[in-house]
Amino acid sequence: MDILNSTISSVKPLDETAIQAARERQDQLTKPQGSLGVLESLSVQLAGIQGRALPVIGKKVIIVMAGDHGVVAEGVSAFPQEVTPQMVANFAAGGAGINVLARHSGCEVRVVDVGVAAPVEIDGVLSRKVRPGTANIAAGPAMSREEAVACLEAGIEAAAAEIAAGADLIGTGDMGIGNTTPSSAILAVLSGVQLQHAVGRGTGIGAEALAHKREVIRRAIEINSPDPGDGLDVLAKVGGLEIGGLAGVILGAAAGRAPVVIDGFISTAAAMVAANLCPASKQYMIASHASVEPGHQLMLDELGLKPMLFMDMRLGEGTGAALAASLVEAAAKVLTQMATFAEAGVAEKNGEAPAKEAGA
Amino acid sequence: MDILNSTISSVKPLDETAIQAARERQDQLTKPQGSLGVLESLSVQLAGIQGRALPVIGKKVIIVMAGDHGVVAEGVSAFPQEVTPQMVANFAAGGAGINVLARHSGCEVRVVDVGVAAPVEIDGVLSRKVRPGTANIAAGPAMSREEAVACLEAGIEAAAAEIAAGADLIGTGDMGIGNTTPSSAILAVLSGVQLQHAVGRGTGIGAEALAHKREVIRRAIEINSPDPGDGLDVLAKVGGLEIGGLAGVILGAAAGRAPVVIDGFISTAAAMVAANLCPASKQYMIASHASVEPGHQLMLDELGLKPMLFMDMRLGEGTGAALAASLVEAAAKVLTQMATFAEAGVAEKNGEAPAKEAGA
Repeated sequence: MDILNSTISSVKPLDETAIQAARERQDQLTKPQGSLGVLESLSVQLAGIQGRALPVIGKKVIIVMAGDHGVVAEGVSAFPQEVTPQMVANFAAGGAGINVLARHSGCEVRVVDVGVAAPVEIDGVLSRKVRPGTANIAAGPAMSREEAVACLEAGIEAAAAEIAAGADLIGTGDMGIGNTTPSSAILAVLSGVQLQHAVGRGTGIGAEALAHKREVIRRAIEINSPDPGDGLDVLAKVGGLEIGGLAGVILGAAAGRAPVVIDGFISTAAAMVAANLCPASKQYMIASHASVEPGHQLMLDELGLKPMLFMDMRLGEGTGAALAASLVEAAAKVLTQMATFAEAGVAEKNGEAPAKEAGA
Repeated sequence: MDILNSTISSVKPLDETAIQAARERQDQLTKPQGSLGVLESLSVQLAGIQGRALPVIGKKVIIVMAGDHGVVAEGVSAFPQEVTPQMVANFAAGGAGINVLARHSGCEVRVVDVGVAAPVEIDGVLSRKVRPGTANIAAGPAMSREEAVACLEAGIEAAAAEIAAGADLIGTGDMGIGNTTPSSAILAVLSGVQLQHAVGRGTGIGAEALAHKREVIRRAIEINSPDPGDGLDVLAKVGGLEIGGLAGVILGAAAGRAPVVIDGFISTAAAMVAANLCPASKQYMIASHASVEPGHQLMLDELGLKPMLFMDMRLGEGTGAALAASLVEAAAKVLTQMATFAEAGVAEKNGEAPAKEAGA
């Protein structure tokens, strides 16, 4: 609890001086003001996060948290639970979607077992197992409050270690069969949206199974009565171990002044928990893609985040974060590498001062 | 005209055998089927374009066509015409937005002067000037039909040269002060949408100038009466030299069996011309981003294309194409580098055959 509390209290607002300097430089670059849209606003956010007018994104690390879910006993997922450790092994071997996309985008991948049900002893997988899977949320709490804190702290420490080792950007990724169910529950509790909007098909269940999944989540919320004002209570009662780990990664990134790129539905549920525990952490978040999972947009709306990529993805693992991490790096390069009007001798907008006199 | 006609007739449908093989492999990769969305469909399209089950995107080239527009005399742009050659020089010097984003995405940049009004003698800029800027479309045709053919052929030859030199992917980019005006005119004529939907603020004109721009385009269409059934007539009467060049680049890419990533509003106007001249070329097109320019979505709808990036960009130059080119490369890597269920020993969906027996 000490690590969690000290981390939350060390998350500071962005650096307004750096933000101002970055904005001024953006407006002198050889393009109509604002014409690079999100690349411009991202670059300014990065300046505020890093506390320097010319931000640099070098080393990028995706942290993938893995955990299992007792609620799979209710038949909420299209895949069997054994897939969680099998995919963790696939991550370690470099054959999964996240590995391919991370290599492409120049990201490293760290895999953390924060709660896989089966024993995991795989080279390259960090063991921070809090417990072997959650309990069935349709019958009681997913975990104790102490276990929820332990997940969060595992994530905080994972992010802190990467930042200490030179990471300029952290991305989030998840693995856990059944984890759209607790993510939907978190969305419903923290935002108050109705279950018909919060719950989707996950990895690919049919219409009947979808109706059943909604009913399971309704029961989970009814039986546990999570307190919407207390993110830790929501995480413990209807959340998941890897979701807690990812909320910790986000808090750890914010405390370490690193931008954190949020992947899809499960990672954004974690972001909602992080924002509930520490509203200031939202300024360090960057949304990656718009998931096919229908509740995802509602989560992003709650957080005030706008995704960049619309590619009908719904895999998780950090695949959207890996693609978006490259866009974030591009934003930093636009700000630092583009020529100004004065440097390039390009005329500015009609009716404005000539470039040569605009100064730099 | 010979080059144009032979190019159009050499654009062939995609390879269905390769498409089928790519689809079968996608469905064996370690993820829920379809969960990588557009990355999956893109990879299948690439297989069909390249005619092989395992497509490869290595060398990527953005071709930026530059030209000027006589219609700037009507006061339709926020920037003066002298910016066109100044930005061409900026491209050659490596300081523009396209240079930064192309370097980031591993794309090379080629700049072609197909109709800049001022003389351009800059190392690294290919001169294929058809004429020094178009005539004012509000008073008569932009260019002759022969000049329109010459622009198209300049683009065809530029794309063919890059493909001959090993390019696996072509991206389009534009530079030309005033070129949202002819692009809006092309959209209005070829799609029949009303001018209030087809015309936007370009690089940043105010509300009064926007109303004036609409009126200028209305006059241009009225005075020239372009034939919506004849893309060459539309290009010659209300188009632009760099727009013709880009339509040629698209046709040349399709004829050379290379995927062509379409940038924003101006490039998509060129794609509409290309699709009008050669409907089969649409299968080689890949949309990059959704421009802020309101008519862009209407163009994409006409072409049946869906953009991947929503980043509020409106710069042109190929900046959206450069970012998207990296996503296209990622799609090829997903198909070729991800492990199959059988290779990774991962269980498939409940109720389906176990992975070990699924075969490869």
